[in-house]
Amino acid sequence: MSFSAENKIHFDNDYMAGAHPEVMRRLVETNLDCSIGYGLDDYSKAARELIRQACDAPHALVQFLVGGTQTNATVIDALLRRHEGVLAAMTAHVNVHESGAIEHSGHKVLTLPSHQGKVALSDVEKHVTTFYQDDTYEHMVAPGMLYITQPTELGTLYSLSELEALSRFCHAHHIPLYLDGARLGYALASPAADFTLADIARLCDVFYIGGTKCGCMFGEAVVAPDPERLPHFFPLVKQHGALLAKGRLQGVQFATLFTDNLYVNIARQAVELALQLRNTFEELGYTVAVDSPTNQQFFTLPNAVVDALLEVATFEYWGPRGETESTVRFVTSWSTQPEEVHALQKALIEAV
Amino acid sequence: MSFSAENKIHFDNDYMAGAHPEVMRRLVETNLDCSIGYGLDDYSKAARELIRQACDAPHALVQFLVGGTQTNATVIDALLRRHEGVLAAMTAHVNVHESGAIEHSGHKVLTLPSHQGKVALSDVEKHVTTFYQDDTYEHMVAPGMLYITQPTELGTLYSLSELEALSRFCHAHHIPLYLDGARLGYALASPAADFTLADIARLCDVFYIGGTKCGCMFGEAVVAPDPERLPHFFPLVKQHGALLAKGRLQGVQFATLFTDNLYVNIARQAVELALQLRNTFEELGYTVAVDSPTNQQFFTLPNAVVDALLEVATFEYWGPRGETESTVRFVTSWSTQPEEVHALQKALIEAV
Amino acid sequence: MSFSAENKIHFDNDYMAGAHPEVMRRLVETNLDCSIGYGLDDYSKAARELIRQACDAPHALVQFLVGGTQTNATVIDALLRRHEGVLAAMTAHVNVHESGAIEHSGHKVLTLPSHQGKVALSDVEKHVTTFYQDDTYEHMVAPGMLYITQPTELGTLYSLSELEALSRFCHAHHIPLYLDGARLGYALASPAADFTLADIARLCDVFYIGGTKCGCMFGEAVVAPDPERLPHFFPLVKQHGALLAKGRLQGVQFATLFTDNLYVNIARQAVELALQLRNTFEELGYTVAVDSPTNQQFFTLPNAVVDALLEVATFEYWGPRGETESTVRFVTSWSTQPEEVHALQKALIEAV
Amino acid sequence: MSFSAENKIHFDNDYMAGAHPEVMRRLVETNLDCSIGYGLDDYSKAARELIRQACDAPHALVQFLVGGTQTNATVIDALLRRHEGVLAAMTAHVNVHESGAIEHSGHKVLTLPSHQGKVALSDVEKHVTTFYQDDTYEHMVAPGMLYITQPTELGTLYSLSELEALSRFCHAHHIPLYLDGARLGYALASPAADFTLADIARLCDVFYIGGTKCGCMFGEAVVAPDPERLPHFFPLVKQHGALLAKGRLQGVQFATLFTDNLYVNIARQAVELALQLRNTFEELGYTVAVDSPTNQQFFTLPNAVVDALLEVATFEYWGPRGETESTVRFVTSWSTQPEEVHALQKALIEAV
Repeated sequence: MSFSAENKIHFDNDYMAGAHPEVMRRLVETNLDCSIGYGLDDYSKAARELIRQACDAPHALVQFLVGGTQTNATVIDALLRRHEGVLAAMTAHVNVHESGAIEHSGHKVLTLPSHQGKVALSDVEKHVTTFYQDDTYEHMVAPGMLYITQPTELGTLYSLSELEALSRFCHAHHIPLYLDGARLGYALASPAADFTLADIARLCDVFYIGGTKCGCMFGEAVVAPDPERLPHFFPLVKQHGALLAKGRLQGVQFATLFTDNLYVNIARQAVELALQLRNTFEELGYTVAVDSPTNQQFFTLPNAVVDALLEVATFEYWGPRGETESTVRFVTSWSTQPEEVHALQKALIEAV
Repeated sequence: MSFSAENKIHFDNDYMAGAHPEVMRRLVETNLDCSIGYGLDDYSKAARELIRQACDAPHALVQFLVGGTQTNATVIDALLRRHEGVLAAMTAHVNVHESGAIEHSGHKVLTLPSHQGKVALSDVEKHVTTFYQDDTYEHMVAPGMLYITQPTELGTLYSLSELEALSRFCHAHHIPLYLDGARLGYALASPAADFTLADIARLCDVFYIGGTKCGCMFGEAVVAPDPERLPHFFPLVKQHGALLAKGRLQGVQFATLFTDNLYVNIARQAVELALQLRNTFEELGYTVAVDSPTNQQFFTLPNAVVDALLEVATFEYWGPRGETESTVRFVTSWSTQPEEVHALQKALIEAV
Repeated sequence: MSFSAENKIHFDNDYMAGAHPEVMRRLVETNLDCSIGYGLDDYSKAARELIRQACDAPHALVQFLVGGTQTNATVIDALLRRHEGVLAAMTAHVNVHESGAIEHSGHKVLTLPSHQGKVALSDVEKHVTTFYQDDTYEHMVAPGMLYITQPTELGTLYSLSELEALSRFCHAHHIPLYLDGARLGYALASPAADFTLADIARLCDVFYIGGTKCGCMFGEAVVAPDPERLPHFFPLVKQHGALLAKGRLQGVQFATLFTDNLYVNIARQAVELALQLRNTFEELGYTVAVDSPTNQQFFTLPNAVVDALLEVATFEYWGPRGETESTVRFVTSWSTQPEEVHALQKALIEAV
Repeated sequence: MSFSAENKIHFDNDYMAGAHPEVMRRLVETNLDCSIGYGLDDYSKAARELIRQACDAPHALVQFLVGGTQTNATVIDALLRRHEGVLAAMTAHVNVHESGAIEHSGHKVLTLPSHQGKVALSDVEKHVTTFYQDDTYEHMVAPGMLYITQPTELGTLYSLSELEALSRFCHAHHIPLYLDGARLGYALASPAADFTLADIARLCDVFYIGGTKCGCMFGEAVVAPDPERLPHFFPLVKQHGALLAKGRLQGVQFATLFTDNLYVNIARQAVELALQLRNTFEELGYTVAVDSPTNQQFFTLPNAVVDALLEVATFEYWGPRGETESTVRFVTSWSTQPEEVHALQKALIEAV
């Protein structure tokens, strides 16, 4: 449930505004240029090269798609063989919020317990190991790949050592590791991040750099450091309805974001504001529902406080906790202004 | 094959430029507004209402998607029952150029002869009638809907009476009629058009108003005059990966195009320029390969003339005709400038 | 893991032997008759009529398929709209043991807790109710039908009142109730059964009467008391590869089983033998792992006892319970002989 | 349309009777044996070994399925990558008579002209060659395999040199060649056959040996001489609902048919009777509609003759030829008796 209204500050999600102004400036500047379609243009070529450099993956396949659900469905369909399913946390976007797009392509989501949005290596190991110990395993859906989100749907992060351990296990068992980076900018910009984009490229078989929530008007960049991992990906993207005619639009946007590190820089302010907000809540003694170091913050608050905050802001309601409290989510983005956070902090202090 | 190069005039297709300047202006103006996602925002509501008015279809379901292949796959999947296929001309986009997106959703394309890109009522009648006369018809794919394009992939138009006849037959046989309007603006703006948008809404069960090729940066508007024709369409759009997070982007664009008839007005110049080009070719004695009254023009030219034109322009090669001639396609769009057509005409005259 | 070997008694499962001798006799008798295919023959007509009578469902659609996984995939595909999934217990065959056949047809299995193999009405209610309370429900897979097994994969039974309550809830919420009766004979023959085949036909929208495990060589009979529930089912069966050319084979088999109540009569001895076995285990103080009143019996035994029994019999190993015990499954069928059970009982007593 | 009635001779198709008596005898003999399921039993192992010997393919994967449509859908799904389609003659069973089973699995049938049911190498070459010459080929469905039937749906045969030429082309272009042998026995038994089963195994990547129409009660044996061609085929068979629980049933049947060459021997009489029938028609001056050397014979007859024959026999009507003639099909099988053919010949002579 989302409370939205006029003249309020918006913390509902990170896709409420359009494009970052610098991205928009470039879209306007190049608007009447003529270019060939489907990402074969020079803007797209340049963007792909900038992304390869940022990932330290000089031979990577980089393919632009339009949105997150579409990207997940297409990549998962490309990576899995028909008898295989995708391992994912119970809370994973692909399991919960994609209207069955993964199953529409014929694949089962094999759920693992969610540890604050993350999968535990031990659960992955247990699933894969016991699977092949079962005599009837060919009557069941084989674990064909592992899907993780960074940051997770709950704002949490896998540490570098966690990523390395998952990657090691997956590679030892020939299970591709796929990282959904819908909010990857906010992960890379977190003070808690002990990994780089190059680490992700080194450890994952395929991942995507989210644009929609991180400065683009729309668009996601799929990266396969070893292109052999995604053979015949282009026609599959087309078949999934995910190939934009004016592919240069994504090229222009990603080229802008991957110049002078803009992608991470604009995310940094969002994370800082989110953590300031968290500080205020904690100082006032409220419970942090999830220990998130990124742009999504979850609190369990007295219902009266929720009501008071709703006078000035919109945000997501995540459900009741007992009779008198509720859990709510506040999301910042590159477009969130410091004054907006200050106004919320002020309202919070007054609500006490 | 597409000849593209620097400093040339581009007649390759109608999606080489970005958005119409007025559309871009509105995207910039609204860029930093915050709005809720998935088309539930006020811009999208306004756009849907403007489209309903233009279609004289006050209760229509209007849903925005991103691109054409995606839209066709989603609508066809929504309209067909599982044992049914879609009737379409052999040359139809859904049969030829969508990388199997229709089949990916589980449906067969049942091909009919192409008459300059159009299906003939007599062929539809014959297919449907003989199908149900066959004792084993339940072992075959039932004709569940009819797909047509307006204008067709060859630039031709169905007349009002042709549309009425197809509609009458389809409705009598409970076969939904679906019109792919990827280039619908160029149909409505043609001097040969004897139908209106309201006629299309009256005669078709579902159709889409193309944005990508007709002034939008991207986006297509699916219209079902009777919303009962597309029950549960929203989750199906999501499942197909066709739901844009920032739905308001399409709302802003379509609201702009459906204000003061901009949608048709910007297409009119494109069609006029295309017909001027055709005149020049005909005056010089060249063969028109297809009798098209819209923005796509096909000519069969001596190879020497093709080579001469390639010095100044880019356009599509459609294949050899004998030893010494080739068929080529020239496409104009809202972004084509009169001077560009004049330059091509000049080059053509000099090439003689 | 299945222990199988020569000269042992087999309790592995209920599909180890061929057809019941009476069924086989009829197959031989009719073997060289010529008949038209695909179930349009007179044997199939007679079988359908006998099943309608046994179900007290005079207008029922009765369609024969070949095997269980195929039947589940086809019926579920027929009942669900594209944006819907199937509610089922975590332990349901469709969720665990069909190699992803449900997802292959595009549908998600929405899992509910398993209560000894059964779903609880309260869990169904909670799932359906909270689903539609969520603002974002159109981004999730809608609960489109309920799948239950009778008896369950663990041998347990829904009582008549449980079936009535599930049916009432499903119908109030327009969610078809589908019952997988792979072992339905052993349910109807159980002393614990307080329902009849007519009750099942009255309460379920669709169900299937299992043949493969209940006396047929192969074959399952899908029943929809109201045929409107399965429109265009025949071509869908064909599309799923589930239509047997020589449909009369199923007709002959089911007509035999539904003459003089043979279907239930041959299951009765199997259940009685299973319960005798259970008695012996309980008298000797062993733990019944599941309280099953049908032909599958689950016990947790000391590993030494398991080893001793393996000297004379084959049965399924279901996993360790601590260091020194294991859970195992014994299954009887219409082909199990009293002497075989006696031999196992003897071995058990000697093993103490 | 099929004319069927009591006390007539049946030439409708080759699946009207049950199993060959010798096959039935073995099914009865082994009926109460207990064996493990899913084809892991000793009967199936023996059958697989006998088939490998008959094919001179000692390492072949041999997997039993139940019926033809199911087999085609499963094999094609296994061989194709997602962006690929299957090349087949316009008249191919997979294109016409499988209710869209191929498309249900997500694949397009790419049709080629039918030359009396066969595809011409020149058409295959043209399709594949022009496909990759098109700049936009990634927007189209790639030719991923070739499907042929032997004998074809029209009873015709590919000669050894035709098979060799198709095989050579396919292998040179990395396109698997798949042969649908629903009636393979009648091909091998034809006096026109200049190929052996070993030739087929040598030239095809995958093929199936039809059981349903050639002596089995039901069942088809898929053979992949190089098992690497069908990796993970077992779970895919299960996923397609094509795995029979009592797999030994197919094992028993195929082991019987592949002992002492029974498979071909019982087909030989069928072909001989079909050719005797053809002789009579030709001697009487009637037109052979298709030049078939196998068990299906097609004639174009005066309608009065058709009516006369319908008094004594049932057979398939294939449509009118002008005002006064019709084309009809007569099919013999292993169960056809010489007296039945004689009776038809007699009726034919009297009808003149």
